[in-house]
Amino acid sequence: MHDVPHLTTALDGPLLELERRILGHQASIEAWFRTQWQKTPAPFYASVDLRNAGFKLAPVDTNLFPAGFNNLNPVFLPLCIQAVQHAIEQIDPTIRNILLIPENHTRNLFYFQNFARLRDILTKAGFQVHLGILPDGLEGATSREISLPGGGSVRLEPLQRKGDRLWVGEFSPCLIVLNNDLAEGRPTILENVDHLIVPPLGLGWSNRLKSDHFAEYRQVVSEFASLLAIDPWVIDPLFTDCGSVDFMARSGEDCMSERAASLLEAIQSKYDEYGLDQKPFLIVKANQGTYGMGIMTVRSVSEIRELNRKQRTRMATSKGGLAVSRVILQEGVYTFESWNSAAAEPVVYMIDRFVVGGFYRVHTNRGRDENLNAPGMHFEHLSFAESCITPDQESPPDCRPNRFYAYGVIARLALVAAARELIQHSAAQREC
Amino acid sequence: MHDVPHLTTALDGPLLELERRILGHQASIEAWFRTQWQKTPAPFYASVDLRNAGFKLAPVDTNLFPAGFNNLNPVFLPLCIQAVQHAIEQIDPTIRNILLIPENHTRNLFYFQNFARLRDILTKAGFQVHLGILPDGLEGATSREISLPGGGSVRLEPLQRKGDRLWVGEFSPCLIVLNNDLAEGRPTILENVDHLIVPPLGLGWSNRLKSDHFAEYRQVVSEFASLLAIDPWVIDPLFTDCGSVDFMARSGEDCMSERAASLLEAIQSKYDEYGLDQKPFLIVKANQGTYGMGIMTVRSVSEIRELNRKQRTRMATSKGGLAVSRVILQEGVYTFESWNSAAAEPVVYMIDRFVVGGFYRVHTNRGRDENLNAPGMHFEHLSFAESCITPDQESPPDCRPNRFYAYGVIARLALVAAARELIQHSAAQREC
Repeated sequence: MHDVPHLTTALDGPLLELERRILGHQASIEAWFRTQWQKTPAPFYASVDLRNAGFKLAPVDTNLFPAGFNNLNPVFLPLCIQAVQHAIEQIDPTIRNILLIPENHTRNLFYFQNFARLRDILTKAGFQVHLGILPDGLEGATSREISLPGGGSVRLEPLQRKGDRLWVGEFSPCLIVLNNDLAEGRPTILENVDHLIVPPLGLGWSNRLKSDHFAEYRQVVSEFASLLAIDPWVIDPLFTDCGSVDFMARSGEDCMSERAASLLEAIQSKYDEYGLDQKPFLIVKANQGTYGMGIMTVRSVSEIRELNRKQRTRMATSKGGLAVSRVILQEGVYTFESWNSAAAEPVVYMIDRFVVGGFYRVHTNRGRDENLNAPGMHFEHLSFAESCITPDQESPPDCRPNRFYAYGVIARLALVAAARELIQHSAAQREC
Repeated sequence: MHDVPHLTTALDGPLLELERRILGHQASIEAWFRTQWQKTPAPFYASVDLRNAGFKLAPVDTNLFPAGFNNLNPVFLPLCIQAVQHAIEQIDPTIRNILLIPENHTRNLFYFQNFARLRDILTKAGFQVHLGILPDGLEGATSREISLPGGGSVRLEPLQRKGDRLWVGEFSPCLIVLNNDLAEGRPTILENVDHLIVPPLGLGWSNRLKSDHFAEYRQVVSEFASLLAIDPWVIDPLFTDCGSVDFMARSGEDCMSERAASLLEAIQSKYDEYGLDQKPFLIVKANQGTYGMGIMTVRSVSEIRELNRKQRTRMATSKGGLAVSRVILQEGVYTFESWNSAAAEPVVYMIDRFVVGGFYRVHTNRGRDENLNAPGMHFEHLSFAESCITPDQESPPDCRPNRFYAYGVIARLALVAAARELIQHSAAQREC
C-alpha cells in the first residue's frame, strides 16, 4: 500500500502483469474498441467506478447519468469539449439547441457544480443550452436560481409540454440531455415527445438492472480476455442476483443466503487458485439504483441471516424511497489504493467513446472492503493529474500514464457493455 | 503594444470589436462550421499562420503538411490524440497500420522533434506506426536513426514499392500520412499506390497555389462575414498574383509593379476608411512553397523596380532550388503582438476539424511588417498556455481564452478554404 504524495496524482501498487499486457497490446486493444463502437455506438456519457485490488482491477458500478464532472481536472476541460462536439455530431450535425435536465429533489450544491460544468462543456462546445427542471409531482416545477459555492450559478427553468414538444419559456430544444437517472420512474412529460433524448429513457434506473449490465460485461470480458490471453476473472467481478427480496418481511432471504454461500465459495476458490490470503466478501445492493443506498458488505452467510432491524430498514429503502425488491450480490473487490491511509477508488469519465478524465474517491472512514459511495457520507475527490489516453511504451507498465491508461481500458469495457444494453432501447424520434 | 509576462501566455491588445462579435456569435459560428464540415470534410491536419494588427486579424499562410507539433503545449497532447482518433476513424475505422513520411533533405533536429511528436500522437492514439523515408533520387534511401536533443530518437526506414504496395521491411501500411509537403514534386514511388494517402498528393506544393487558397478563403470569408455582420477585410488579406515572373531575367516585372501599385492603393483606401495612419505594405512571395524562402516586404513600387542582384537571386530560388515562376502579392498585416519587444505571430494547429493548440512565433530581429518565418533564421516558440476551444462568455472578449478562441475561429476559416481545395483532389484508392 502506497500513499499519494499530493492531491492530483496517481497511486503506486502491483497490478503489474495486467498493466504489462494492456500496454503490450495497446494497438490491438484500440483496434478492438473501434470495432466495438462500429457495432454498438457508445452511450452519450458514462462514469465507471473501479476497484483495484492489486491482483484484480474491475468495474463495480456504471452510471449512465454521471454526476461529478466538477471533480475532473480542469486541465482536461478541452478534452470534454472536443468529445461532446464529436458525440453530438454523431447524433445529428444539425443540432444547435440543447435542453439539459438535472436531478430533482436534490439540494446538493456539489451536484449542481457538476451540472454547471456540464452546461459549460456544452456551451463552450458551441450549443445553445437551457436548463429545464422536471415537474415535481402535480405541482409543476418553478423557476429557480442556485448560487454555487465556487462562484457562478445555475438557472433552472420549469419544463412545459405543448403537444409533442417541450419548452422552457420561448425555447424548444432539438436535443434533450438527461442528467437525471430516472430512479423514480419515467417522467410522463418526457414520454413520446418529438425530441431526441440522450441517454434514452429506457436506460434510466427504473428500467435498468445492474445484473443485466454485468451480464453484458461478462460477455464483453470473455471476448477481450482472449485478445490479451488473461483470466477473465482478473477484470470481472463475479455476481449473482435474487429476483425479489423483501427485507422487512424477510422473504427471499433463503435465496440470498444460498446464493451468497455459493458466491463466497466461488471467490474463495479463485483466491486459492491465485494463492491469495485475503478473505472473500460480497457487496449486496439494489439491482436498480444509483446512489449507493442500501448497500452492505457481507463476509459470511450468517451476516445475512442475522441482519438487525436497523440494517433491514436501510436495505429496504433505496433512492426515492422505493422498497428494494431486486437485489444483486456482487463479488467485493478490495481496494489496495489509498491516500493518507484512506481507501481510494478510481472513477473514470467518458463522453461518447472517449475517456475524458477521472478522479479518486477517497474515504477516510471506510475500509478496503466497503463501498465508498455510501449515502450521506463525506468523501474527497482527487482529480487524476494526467489523462487516461497517453500510454507511454517507453515507461514501466505501472507508471502513472500507463496505470491511468489501464483504468481507461477497463472502464471502456464497461462502456461497451452499456452500449450493448443501449442497443435494446431505440432512441425516440424527433424534429430539430 | 504589450509584453508577454512569461513564456506561455497570451498577449493583450485591441481587436476588441471583432472578438466581441466572435464571442457573441459563438453558437452560430460553431453551427456554421458544422455545416461546412458536412459539405467539405476538413483536411487531415493543418497549421495556419495568423497576423494580428489590432484592427485586423488574418491568416497569411496555411500549411497542409504542418511541422511544429513539438512546439505545442504538452498539456494538450490528449487533445491531439483524441482528434487524430476521430480523424482516422472518419477515413476508415478499420485502419490499424500507419506509415508516416517525413521531409527529405533536412537535418533540422527541431523538425524531427516535430516528427517524433506526430509519431507519438499516432502511437498513443492506438495505431501501429512506422516511419518511412522517400527514396533520395536514384539511390534509394537508407535506414537511419536520428537522436533528438530532448532525448529519444526516430528511426527512419527506407520505403520500398512492390507492385502497387509500399513496404518498410515486413510492414505494409493501410494509411500513409505525409508530413512532406512535396515542394520538390510528386514522388513517383507514391503515384497510383494501393494505399490511402493523407493529405492527397494533389495538395502538395508542387500542385497547390497560395492564390487558389486565398481565393477560396475570400469566398469563405464573404459567407462568414455576413453571419457576423463585419467588413470581410478585417479578417481577409487582400492579394493578387502574377502568372510568371523571372527575377533574374527581369521578365514579369511590369505586371508585378502594376499590381503592387493597385494593391497598395487598395490597402491605403481601407486604411483611410478606418482612419489608420500606418503605412501599407505588401508581402511578395512564391505562390508555391512553404518555408518562406524568397519572401520580401514591399512598401512602395520602387522597391520592386530597384531590386539589387542579391535580392533577385534570393527571390529566384525557393525550397528545393526551383526557380520562382509564380508570385503572389499579399497585403502585409502588421503584427501588433510582441514579446520582450520582439514581433510575435500566432500559429494555430488543427487535426481534422479540431483546433488542438498553437504557439507564438517570436523573432527578436524582425520588424512588425516582416515575415517571421524566414529561411535559416532563428525564432522562439511560445506555446499557447490555454486551448483555443474554451471561450468564456462571462469574461471580457479579449481575455486569454477568448482571444485564443478568436484565433481558432479565424484559423478554421482558412481550414474551410483548404477543405474546399481538398475536394478537388480525390483520395487514392487503397486496400487495408
